[in-house]
Amino acid sequence: METVSENKCFGGVQGVYSHTSVATGTEMTFGLFLPEADGPVPVLFYLSGLTCTHENAMVKAGAQACAAAAGIAVVFPDTSPRGDGVADDEAYDLGQGAGFYVDATKAPWAPHFSMQSYVLDDLSTLLFERFPLTPDAQAITGHSMGGHGALTLAAKSPGRFRSVSAFSPICNPTESDWGQKQFTAYLGSVEAGRAHDASLLAAGGALDLPVLTDTGTADQFGPLLRTEALASALAGNPRAEVRMQDGYDHSYFFVSTFMADHVAFHATHLA
Amino acid sequence: METVSENKCFGGVQGVYSHTSVATGTEMTFGLFLPEADGPVPVLFYLSGLTCTHENAMVKAGAQACAAAAGIAVVFPDTSPRGDGVADDEAYDLGQGAGFYVDATKAPWAPHFSMQSYVLDDLSTLLFERFPLTPDAQAITGHSMGGHGALTLAAKSPGRFRSVSAFSPICNPTESDWGQKQFTAYLGSVEAGRAHDASLLAAGGALDLPVLTDTGTADQFGPLLRTEALASALAGNPRAEVRMQDGYDHSYFFVSTFMADHVAFHATHLA
Repeated sequence: METVSENKCFGGVQGVYSHTSVATGTEMTFGLFLPEADGPVPVLFYLSGLTCTHENAMVKAGAQACAAAAGIAVVFPDTSPRGDGVADDEAYDLGQGAGFYVDATKAPWAPHFSMQSYVLDDLSTLLFERFPLTPDAQAITGHSMGGHGALTLAAKSPGRFRSVSAFSPICNPTESDWGQKQFTAYLGSVEAGRAHDASLLAAGGALDLPVLTDTGTADQFGPLLRTEALASALAGNPRAEVRMQDGYDHSYFFVSTFMADHVAFHATHLA
Repeated sequence: METVSENKCFGGVQGVYSHTSVATGTEMTFGLFLPEADGPVPVLFYLSGLTCTHENAMVKAGAQACAAAAGIAVVFPDTSPRGDGVADDEAYDLGQGAGFYVDATKAPWAPHFSMQSYVLDDLSTLLFERFPLTPDAQAITGHSMGGHGALTLAAKSPGRFRSVSAFSPICNPTESDWGQKQFTAYLGSVEAGRAHDASLLAAGGALDLPVLTDTGTADQFGPLLRTEALASALAGNPRAEVRMQDGYDHSYFFVSTFMADHVAFHATHLA
């Protein structure tokens, strides 16, 4: 692991690190905010959306202020493998910057696009080995494609995360242009994507942990998110809240507005 | 004036607008955060540093959270005129992105580089005409070159701003490579820059308002800032505080850390 940069921030350290990942077979870069603390701290994974790198949320989401106050670390993984030898597509929503948090099984994506394994296994192993983080106090959140990632990785890792939240998540990708295209490319069919669809997983009872999502009523990508499917799947679940926020859109101005709410939600469960 | 974008943010609106400026003779773009309010609100000018546009602080400084809580608007001007017909230099610290908040008198800069007049007159006139802002409740802050701008524009506008603050300001540009080069280019001599040097203005008693500055002890540009000159000029002034912050550098991770302090400082004087 190499240190790319470290900046003091809200009394802690906002670091950027790179390492060779076995899961993706590439050099990967991630951000980690570590609050000032005397010992190991809980950790919140923040998964970013389409076109993002590790950097976008790290500089725009305002997470450090809340995380420092709550004594929680925040990790910002990249959204895909990158580099010259890595497959790509000219569309913004496929290939580099658009890993969708699944392990691809189809050419040309299979050799490197294993973002599920990268986040859950590879990056996590490194994090708990190298930083003062508490493995039994993990939570996960994300934005848009990263909200999809947070909800589905939580559903597929029973008992691992104490809570999950999401900002404007893609909720039902097997029924959306944000999902059908990617599942077909990475996994060979939309059908294969059913194991990575938050609404289907929730309907099957797999989201068995505290859940909080926020989506803006003015989200310019609203129809692609299919929030209503997740709301329906989680209806009556006393530990799940699918909120609509009046007038907010899909931007980081929305994410930053509700970041304190989400960090406080996770802090309650991580305490 | 044209609306480039408006995003709901912390209950208010983060807007980006463009307009034709008489002062610069160009199209200028600025950001304005307006908190939710029933009537006119106080306004804080935030002047950015070298290489920045109106956008950097708007997305990275975390100002909206604090400003919304305090009921204060924040305006983010650009740092120079821009465009094809506007003079430029290949160096990052001269020309476009580096206006230094003075009115240039020398070729090739004089026709467009009038950032002092732009901020104090042209942009301000537009702001108070078009938005619900209170002209008698103004404050000013900035970062690096923008910290220099905030301190010097406050000193040159007695009675206009109720308070001034700065993050890692260039404090004594007539004695720094961040200043000597620009004053020579824009004004014809370092000597002419003495009227735009915060430490010299402060020593002459011109900073006659509440002052707060924060600079990191690990600032990679520390020697260029000459914070000690400003501290010396303001020593014994009961309304001025020149603070050093242990371990912080020049980045927005530093700015965002102390943004709440600065907004609270201004809110006290704007109330």
